[in-house]
Amino acid sequence: MAEIILDSKAYKHNLNLISSHIGSHSSPNVELAAVLKDNAYGHGLNEIASIAAEYGIKSVFVKNHNEAIQVCELFPQVTALYGMPQGDFAKNIAFVIHDKEHISALPKGTKVELKVNAGMNRNGIQPSELQSFIKDILQKGLELIGVFSHNGYGDDLDSAFFDTQSNFALIKQEVLHLSQKYGFAPPRFHSLSTSGAIRVASESGITDDLVRIGIGAYGYLDVSFKNPISAKLQKVASLYADRVSTRFLHKGERIGYSGCTTLESPQVISTYDIGYGDGFFRVSEHHKVHTTNGLQILPRSSMDCFSCFCDEPRICVFKDVSELAKAFGTISYEILTHLSPSIKRTII
Amino acid sequence: MAEIILDSKAYKHNLNLISSHIGSHSSPNVELAAVLKDNAYGHGLNEIASIAAEYGIKSVFVKNHNEAIQVCELFPQVTALYGMPQGDFAKNIAFVIHDKEHISALPKGTKVELKVNAGMNRNGIQPSELQSFIKDILQKGLELIGVFSHNGYGDDLDSAFFDTQSNFALIKQEVLHLSQKYGFAPPRFHSLSTSGAIRVASESGITDDLVRIGIGAYGYLDVSFKNPISAKLQKVASLYADRVSTRFLHKGERIGYSGCTTLESPQVISTYDIGYGDGFFRVSEHHKVHTTNGLQILPRSSMDCFSCFCDEPRICVFKDVSELAKAFGTISYEILTHLSPSIKRTII
Repeated sequence: MAEIILDSKAYKHNLNLISSHIGSHSSPNVELAAVLKDNAYGHGLNEIASIAAEYGIKSVFVKNHNEAIQVCELFPQVTALYGMPQGDFAKNIAFVIHDKEHISALPKGTKVELKVNAGMNRNGIQPSELQSFIKDILQKGLELIGVFSHNGYGDDLDSAFFDTQSNFALIKQEVLHLSQKYGFAPPRFHSLSTSGAIRVASESGITDDLVRIGIGAYGYLDVSFKNPISAKLQKVASLYADRVSTRFLHKGERIGYSGCTTLESPQVISTYDIGYGDGFFRVSEHHKVHTTNGLQILPRSSMDCFSCFCDEPRICVFKDVSELAKAFGTISYEILTHLSPSIKRTII
Repeated sequence: MAEIILDSKAYKHNLNLISSHIGSHSSPNVELAAVLKDNAYGHGLNEIASIAAEYGIKSVFVKNHNEAIQVCELFPQVTALYGMPQGDFAKNIAFVIHDKEHISALPKGTKVELKVNAGMNRNGIQPSELQSFIKDILQKGLELIGVFSHNGYGDDLDSAFFDTQSNFALIKQEVLHLSQKYGFAPPRFHSLSTSGAIRVASESGITDDLVRIGIGAYGYLDVSFKNPISAKLQKVASLYADRVSTRFLHKGERIGYSGCTTLESPQVISTYDIGYGDGFFRVSEHHKVHTTNGLQILPRSSMDCFSCFCDEPRICVFKDVSELAKAFGTISYEILTHLSPSIKRTII
């Protein structure tokens, strides 16, 4: 049965690497939070949560309430980035305010983090709305534990990265001013994901209270700027597929849907139990894709399996999805997050 | 919260349509079985299983033991197409034999179906191995309830479709001969999925005992031959996304990762809670993708959301994935099967 192997040492190595890079350039109080959203970027939420908790992570970010309830016993602070709670929820789950209707939807005493748009122009409130939102949050009796943003230029050399950082600095200033004015405890501030954190740490030092480490912890950092981290990261997930059946075929015989691959010579061929129904991208005649050991995944792959010229009982589909991402014209994150949660996960 | 709406009437309409087409051209005893594998082609296994059971489906095909245990109380016969059981299993779950090692892995009394390669050259045993496999199955005390194949040319005009059917006719003959020779009850025979069943019913009438209806029941039949069914099928799944936040932006402002979209005029823009982390394909600057109402999904979409020029509280991402499949250079099946099981499903 196909299996995703999760290398816990790699995950911890990556966190150590990022932590020591950030720590040596920033205030020692910058907290490393783990981003576990979207089934831990496709790796497996419960599995990665257990590794992160073991490492000592205290704050995590998940997609929504459903993900939060799965991990809220493992961490002191869990933030659900999107959506409102469905039913009861634990006290240590915070919900994110993007809109006034979120304030009215939450019961008194709920922990919240306020998302502010610092220039990505995607989610969150406008900086000009800070006072109005914070007044409403306080009036509703919600506990404002964080104010944050997301820098959408973290991977690029674009100067908009720095404009966004400057905007966030102004947002912090304004929130601290409001905190004094209305007498609430200053919330934690965060604006940086892995790439942004690496970059700001190297350039000016991080002044936020927390950084949100997602993709870097999983071993990927596909950025367009030079940095001392990318090459040292270790990939956490590798995917293995098991043989379904093996046969010997003659020259000229055709394989798979529409007989898409025709044999140019006699071959031993086997099918393996990963297909696009497992969230692995569909290999068609327009892709040239290989396993870790260089075996071509023959087009077209099926919903539940693919074929290769070999008869090994188990093959490694990938230890690194970077080449797959290129072959499918996308980014590593998409290849990883699409992997079906129904594939078995094993932590080593 | 994003939601997949499942139209139970559409599913039943499709089964009625296929059933009446097959019935009027074939033996009245051809059983319609439902293929529910891969989370019911991404629709939601438990939800589609409940609709199929209500319709009166008796036999279903699922991916593996994990899927089988979720639906085995709803149907008299459940076949797990891949893999062996992990632990105990209900008596009505059959496992598929592709290899001798599967025979030795199963306990005495287990129901099995034998997959035979009739020309797709993908899974199953070779026809020449029939006697050897059946002898071993009988010797192990397994109950052979089915012998089947899969025609990999169902969607094409390729003459290999008919060669495959001829091969399966010979396989049936051989199995019936062995059934007399070794004194076991003739198993059920099946070789056709939706497209093959529609085609054979029109052309020569179906002589198999059962047809496996997968994609057609979900409303899709993307085949290269004319048929009276495709245009009448109704799509079962539609995807809705809810607004996260809304803002007004000026001409020249940039949106999303790397500021990929630049505004040519002032616009109201909102984000919606579906992204590639939900299994929806990632919209980049290389794709032009629209919602059901013709709103462009602006590049680049994020892991958890996308942006559109509008401020509706909820928008329909798709009612039909055919255009999306074209935009992403793939087939409808892949768009559907990748949809994350964590998206809420609602049956109407």
